[in-house]
Amino acid sequence: MGDSANHSPKKIVKGDGGYVLEDVPHLSDYIPDLPTYPNPLQDNPAYSVVKQYFVNVDDTVQQKIVVHKNSPRGIHFRRAGPRQKVYFDSDEVHACIVTCGGLCPGLNTVIREIVCGLYHMYGVTKILGIEGGYRGFYSRNTVTLNPKFVNDIHKRGGTILGTSRGGHVTAKIVDSIQDRGINQVYILGGDGTQKGASVIFEEIRRRDLKVAVAGIPKTIDNDIPVIDKSFGFDTAVEEAQRAINAAHVEAESVENGIGVVKLMGRNSGFIAMHATLASRDVDCCLIPESPFYLEGSGGLLEYIEKRLKENGHMVIVIAEGAGQELVSESMRSMEQQDASGNKLLQDVGLWISQKIKDHFARRNKMAINLKYIDPTYMIRAIPSNASDNVYCTLLAHSVVHGAMAGYTGFTVGPVNGRHSYIPFYRITEKQNNVVITDRMWARLLSSTNQPSFLSPKDIIEDKRDEEESQSQLEIDDNMP
Amino acid sequence: MGDSANHSPKKIVKGDGGYVLEDVPHLSDYIPDLPTYPNPLQDNPAYSVVKQYFVNVDDTVQQKIVVHKNSPRGIHFRRAGPRQKVYFDSDEVHACIVTCGGLCPGLNTVIREIVCGLYHMYGVTKILGIEGGYRGFYSRNTVTLNPKFVNDIHKRGGTILGTSRGGHVTAKIVDSIQDRGINQVYILGGDGTQKGASVIFEEIRRRDLKVAVAGIPKTIDNDIPVIDKSFGFDTAVEEAQRAINAAHVEAESVENGIGVVKLMGRNSGFIAMHATLASRDVDCCLIPESPFYLEGSGGLLEYIEKRLKENGHMVIVIAEGAGQELVSESMRSMEQQDASGNKLLQDVGLWISQKIKDHFARRNKMAINLKYIDPTYMIRAIPSNASDNVYCTLLAHSVVHGAMAGYTGFTVGPVNGRHSYIPFYRITEKQNNVVITDRMWARLLSSTNQPSFLSPKDIIEDKRDEEESQSQLEIDDNMP
Amino acid sequence: MGDSANHSPKKIVKGDGGYVLEDVPHLSDYIPDLPTYPNPLQDNPAYSVVKQYFVNVDDTVQQKIVVHKNSPRGIHFRRAGPRQKVYFDSDEVHACIVTCGGLCPGLNTVIREIVCGLYHMYGVTKILGIEGGYRGFYSRNTVTLNPKFVNDIHKRGGTILGTSRGGHVTAKIVDSIQDRGINQVYILGGDGTQKGASVIFEEIRRRDLKVAVAGIPKTIDNDIPVIDKSFGFDTAVEEAQRAINAAHVEAESVENGIGVVKLMGRNSGFIAMHATLASRDVDCCLIPESPFYLEGSGGLLEYIEKRLKENGHMVIVIAEGAGQELVSESMRSMEQQDASGNKLLQDVGLWISQKIKDHFARRNKMAINLKYIDPTYMIRAIPSNASDNVYCTLLAHSVVHGAMAGYTGFTVGPVNGRHSYIPFYRITEKQNNVVITDRMWARLLSSTNQPSFLSPKDIIEDKRDEEESQSQLEIDDNMP
Amino acid sequence: MGDSANHSPKKIVKGDGGYVLEDVPHLSDYIPDLPTYPNPLQDNPAYSVVKQYFVNVDDTVQQKIVVHKNSPRGIHFRRAGPRQKVYFDSDEVHACIVTCGGLCPGLNTVIREIVCGLYHMYGVTKILGIEGGYRGFYSRNTVTLNPKFVNDIHKRGGTILGTSRGGHVTAKIVDSIQDRGINQVYILGGDGTQKGASVIFEEIRRRDLKVAVAGIPKTIDNDIPVIDKSFGFDTAVEEAQRAINAAHVEAESVENGIGVVKLMGRNSGFIAMHATLASRDVDCCLIPESPFYLEGSGGLLEYIEKRLKENGHMVIVIAEGAGQELVSESMRSMEQQDASGNKLLQDVGLWISQKIKDHFARRNKMAINLKYIDPTYMIRAIPSNASDNVYCTLLAHSVVHGAMAGYTGFTVGPVNGRHSYIPFYRITEKQNNVVITDRMWARLLSSTNQPSFLSPKDIIEDKRDEEESQSQLEIDDNMP
Repeated sequence: MGDSANHSPKKIVKGDGGYVLEDVPHLSDYIPDLPTYPNPLQDNPAYSVVKQYFVNVDDTVQQKIVVHKNSPRGIHFRRAGPRQKVYFDSDEVHACIVTCGGLCPGLNTVIREIVCGLYHMYGVTKILGIEGGYRGFYSRNTVTLNPKFVNDIHKRGGTILGTSRGGHVTAKIVDSIQDRGINQVYILGGDGTQKGASVIFEEIRRRDLKVAVAGIPKTIDNDIPVIDKSFGFDTAVEEAQRAINAAHVEAESVENGIGVVKLMGRNSGFIAMHATLASRDVDCCLIPESPFYLEGSGGLLEYIEKRLKENGHMVIVIAEGAGQELVSESMRSMEQQDASGNKLLQDVGLWISQKIKDHFARRNKMAINLKYIDPTYMIRAIPSNASDNVYCTLLAHSVVHGAMAGYTGFTVGPVNGRHSYIPFYRITEKQNNVVITDRMWARLLSSTNQPSFLSPKDIIEDKRDEEESQSQLEIDDNMP
Repeated sequence: MGDSANHSPKKIVKGDGGYVLEDVPHLSDYIPDLPTYPNPLQDNPAYSVVKQYFVNVDDTVQQKIVVHKNSPRGIHFRRAGPRQKVYFDSDEVHACIVTCGGLCPGLNTVIREIVCGLYHMYGVTKILGIEGGYRGFYSRNTVTLNPKFVNDIHKRGGTILGTSRGGHVTAKIVDSIQDRGINQVYILGGDGTQKGASVIFEEIRRRDLKVAVAGIPKTIDNDIPVIDKSFGFDTAVEEAQRAINAAHVEAESVENGIGVVKLMGRNSGFIAMHATLASRDVDCCLIPESPFYLEGSGGLLEYIEKRLKENGHMVIVIAEGAGQELVSESMRSMEQQDASGNKLLQDVGLWISQKIKDHFARRNKMAINLKYIDPTYMIRAIPSNASDNVYCTLLAHSVVHGAMAGYTGFTVGPVNGRHSYIPFYRITEKQNNVVITDRMWARLLSSTNQPSFLSPKDIIEDKRDEEESQSQLEIDDNMP
Repeated sequence: MGDSANHSPKKIVKGDGGYVLEDVPHLSDYIPDLPTYPNPLQDNPAYSVVKQYFVNVDDTVQQKIVVHKNSPRGIHFRRAGPRQKVYFDSDEVHACIVTCGGLCPGLNTVIREIVCGLYHMYGVTKILGIEGGYRGFYSRNTVTLNPKFVNDIHKRGGTILGTSRGGHVTAKIVDSIQDRGINQVYILGGDGTQKGASVIFEEIRRRDLKVAVAGIPKTIDNDIPVIDKSFGFDTAVEEAQRAINAAHVEAESVENGIGVVKLMGRNSGFIAMHATLASRDVDCCLIPESPFYLEGSGGLLEYIEKRLKENGHMVIVIAEGAGQELVSESMRSMEQQDASGNKLLQDVGLWISQKIKDHFARRNKMAINLKYIDPTYMIRAIPSNASDNVYCTLLAHSVVHGAMAGYTGFTVGPVNGRHSYIPFYRITEKQNNVVITDRMWARLLSSTNQPSFLSPKDIIEDKRDEEESQSQLEIDDNMP
Repeated sequence: MGDSANHSPKKIVKGDGGYVLEDVPHLSDYIPDLPTYPNPLQDNPAYSVVKQYFVNVDDTVQQKIVVHKNSPRGIHFRRAGPRQKVYFDSDEVHACIVTCGGLCPGLNTVIREIVCGLYHMYGVTKILGIEGGYRGFYSRNTVTLNPKFVNDIHKRGGTILGTSRGGHVTAKIVDSIQDRGINQVYILGGDGTQKGASVIFEEIRRRDLKVAVAGIPKTIDNDIPVIDKSFGFDTAVEEAQRAINAAHVEAESVENGIGVVKLMGRNSGFIAMHATLASRDVDCCLIPESPFYLEGSGGLLEYIEKRLKENGHMVIVIAEGAGQELVSESMRSMEQQDASGNKLLQDVGLWISQKIKDHFARRNKMAINLKYIDPTYMIRAIPSNASDNVYCTLLAHSVVHGAMAGYTGFTVGPVNGRHSYIPFYRITEKQNNVVITDRMWARLLSSTNQPSFLSPKDIIEDKRDEEESQSQLEIDDNMP
């Protein structure tokens, strides 16, 4: 994915009282004497009533909310929103939009609102859709986007632009951008996609192009750090309730019924955790952040047996990335047989279902009745709900304001409820995870009564780890 | 499941013009001098306005609707409904309800309405729920049912009584019926369950007990013959739309996207066929009744390739019982390896997904992107929709009227829209299947444009088979 | 609406055993020597496997299902479906579709399937949409319809063609048909619309035009006689559950809470009745067919008071056409004041809510808390559910087969589950109503426990009325 | 509602850099020498892994997020969460819960989680439900609450405790609290209810009782200041989409179709604004905060005419409190006639629908077709969605932690995403309103293209008002 050696330097501004601003790049950082224009919103009747419509040039958003009297002020981000002066003339703008990676509710809403935002707020009419993800830049034709074309797309799931994984060939992409005369690039995608966007930005900067590169972070798993929540997450948690309800009904209707629901979450268990908390019908929630084991005292199988004896049925929610080390171990022990069917067991949902069935079949003392539900694609493919629709609108408008104002190499998202411009590195250098030493996870454990799968030794070590990353914890801490 | 040698004889009544009545048994067939009572509905204010409320003793329901001037009148069934005279005194009735087999939307509504029907229409207060299916008769305690207890259960999926497969030990069940003094037995379940109910009836008759045995046929697959439609089917087809929509969105959003949806239907493809017709987003529908093959000219893989080239994406719906002979063949060839993961490939959805992936990976000329959705348990577990709720009410009331009127060894269901009493053998001796030489299937083929997977030779043979069963065809024919 | 004096005569065919066929007109009735063509479906691969695909020329559908040994065979209709010979060459066909009257779930599905049926089954490519109802024939441009254009419209509520009431000027419409060279006219609409279609047919016949006129009866109220059920009805009953649920929750949450839900049904209470039966949360269902009164013993207000004392809350469902004579009386007494707000009280839902509030305010002894919900437009505007989608497909295909086969002046619909061609007069000469002396209504009264609002004298008279229309009753009788 | 003269003083703590803490009362403020106990959560296995589980005694939540380098730190609130020491022994606690005012999605979830939180986290077993709102304290029996009883209530709309308006008689309520030995009072309700809670707190303080009084602010309208969002709001906005969709379909399907949807919002238009932004099918959104006028240039009727001419149809969303001065004026002019029907026109939805109809009937040049939808009760009565369910859980746990820790006279809610304890006066002294000089409203105007209904003079005045309340604006400012 290109050489990251010549990364542009971080823009850090420090102030009094421990104030730190992690700023985003700007076209004027590397292109001298760029002309500016008055923001056309000044003449927009819809905005004529808005006092101080434009964001003050000094506005920043504070990341740290829980403070003491003597707290240092900590990290801040540049506030998103329209600026008095813009760095593009409306007629000059030639924008493009690309969607990469897996589906997520809200993609079409973001596309719609970038198009409508550019068009209605800034009078921009040249907007291209890049089809099929990154590789669409160089291997496919583009589609012309305008408000009429995108008018109803927010009512459909998926992405009208199509998507794919990979396909990121920096030189070809930037060549295409340059050849087509594109000067604003809007990139929707997850962690890897944003890393790719960062590389594109670096290459564009290296070539001294007046092209703004803006990322809109997309992850149904909510595993992007810094921002409050990723779009589509709310919709996904809502839709997951259907599967949990069904698992509960199936489990309740038979003797020793077990309903297993696999939910999204390769590296983080937010969907599983929130869906469990929202549902209250779940007896065990397994996530990547919280290792578990099957056999022996304090293990999952023991808990299942106990729960079935008490209640006659149970519901297990498992995030797709949970227990990966256990699955890998199973795979290794089966390897010599090389059966194609075994590959299916790499799916943790199928794997754990098999393990549970095998256990109780072997023990022969309790006939269980397990039903496995994998609603993943049914969740990903639905249109975004009202709350995500409004959120996507704000994201789209924020990113348009930023690009028009000449910012580049940035992503956008709400920090403590205020949309902000965030440098790429802050959202790609690490992932947002469920902190299992946080109160939210404790709350879940309390509601499910499941074991913590931690030995006392683990607990102590875990606490020590946490203490070392103390300052970080305080910052991220968003417990009620 | 007991000896079926001493089956009671069929009750066939013949009349003029080819009129045939296939009647159901009655308690008075084997118990002489049973007293009768005036139907308490006569004094029920709700029924006081209903003229000719009671079903005429001679009313029968004609099975054959499409007729010519010279047609013989054919088979009829006894019309369901309240009779002027009943064979049970209200205080004497001790009813029980049991649910067997897999979940199906509407089970709780039927339970509710049997309870409320017995209570409100006939003043019956002794009603037991048998828990956990047939084996609940002898291995578990019962639960007392009354209108208050069942008041809201129709809003929940599943069955409040619990269910199980098997467990049918005739002697133990009839002993339990006799020991508990039960004299009305309501049995909800599929094909196998109804066969069991028939055996219970025979044993009760052998013992000369005044016990009415009534079956309510349950199958989400709609594979019960004679009756118009089984309860829960409408709800299932409706809910299947979600999965098909999701598959469509997923397939559309990627290059060469294939969405595969497995739907219920072990022996009959009604859900798959109706869900396909209702959705119109499906490119191929595979059902047990229509054999298909993968490789070669006219095969599925060829069709997939063609469709992807034309459209860029496609949706396949497959009933769980489709292609069983192909799956078995695959299983045999893998057998020596005995890998536990391979068992998963007995699931036709996982199997066909693997086959398609393997094919295109091997060919190496087209990268496909397949998403597999199995919504089975999410469909089975939802509450019944309004239409099924009304249907379940009528079923429940019909069966209660029948038992009170002394009929026994019968099931109930609508024949051409009129609820009727049907002898057990008529619904267990064969299954209702999609007739692939019918216009409905032709309509589906026309809407999906999928190949018929039939060689010209097959077509000829198939037509010949049909001709032999001509009379039956005419009777079952319910094409528009 | 034109002179109905010169109606073409009814086509009645009589046969043995009391067999009566009420046949539909055919183009060859008034145009001699029309050429016929082999049905192109014979060469359609999708239909190649279907044995006896074509409807036998003698097939008729029997209306009477509940029979005795000695019953006369009664009325029959011509069976719908494709004929071996058609009266239009595919290239010759120039079809148009128009939708009239209020919205109903499924309109777009019927439009879609007429277009796709004509195109895929018969190779017809010239299909026009008439916009905005009858007046669109002469006052607006047409829209060209093809399978691509209509591909997704079944997922939207409403009608893509637009609709209106009235606008039926026979001469202008038939002029437009003649001038544009249209030779198949598909008309979707209710009672009045079908009367209009009948007049158009008569005028076309008078002019000796080779134009097939076919009606698809539309009424969300299910008040069309002869046919089993009108499209959209199922969807409407389902959606009505939301409003009833909400009314129930509102009523339950306060002291003496009353939830009032108005549902569709100007002349017939089917939606109200089925929604009540499906929901079971309703304490009183008021429909046009069952007169009621407010004051005094046995009146509604007395019942409300009783119910609130027993239960603390109640839910009332009222069809929009219920109690019209009471509303008119109220209107007359207010007339002199001529206040514009009073017109609102012509809405029976607002009117009855006001009456109930006034009563309890006046009595001053019980503080009630009434919430009124009118979900009418939210119900009408939703897309049709899966069951209605399949039904609409069959309707559309049946009507297309009929027009291609040269039938004209007909409507289409299922009679005892088999689609049939029905002469206009049979569906416009009277309406389908809830028969309050039927078991279905008794069942409702039993489930709600509401009073019948009938004095003993009423009951006797009502029964006498029924006896007079005995033969008709037997025919329509579709009780379980 | 009691004398508010002897209000307890505000607890304000000041610190460096403009730090202000608006603290909440504590039982120890007026009861000396209260014993404390170790928090039982310390021994709860679910919480054993949580490092620093307890909230630091000095943690406060900053209200101001958008800052400059030199900004004063501004107002803070005490952070919610469990404390190391509690002021109640578990066995000593006798809690009660009451719900007041209109329905709102999530009430049952909050009730459930207060009960489960007290029980599972603190081992509290004595919990009473007060039925029917404030007056239930003295006029009705209580209901005993425990985790089993409340297990499934979050899946139902409404409130299982029942509710009412008014009924606040301070002395009787506090007598009842005292007589029953209740020492924790949880009060769910809106603005008026929280004022009542404040008065109860003052009286309890006056009597020196060891009783914690805690409010959970409830308003579907989201008009509570300080907190980020009120529970149920998300669910309401989601559900409002149905009505807007229906209005859109109805309007689109006829010529000059107008769909009018009334949404909740007596004093603030948040639901209308968010529903409009989420839907994008709305052409005009009218809210209480933005006065409008009907007649003349720039008026609503002119805009409607323009919009119909351009588009052929339109959708209007109106909050129930919009245009109240216009409605009042209309009422006055009709007053002399005193017709009961006129009262209906106090409903702004019915009123504006009538005004629009009258206008176009009078003008006689454009026939319009208006459909009015009032989904209010259908929205209020649904269960909360997943997002609100999680939110309600956090609210409930926060309030329980606060009461156990001895805080009293407080409400709870998220401030910038962190749950905080907020003094009553901060949420009752003013309402949260849509700031029509904010960017969010500008965004709405831009998306609907509706007029601002402001004369240039209004705009100037409005800006001046805003400038005067500058400091407040900066604090509340939550624009992206």
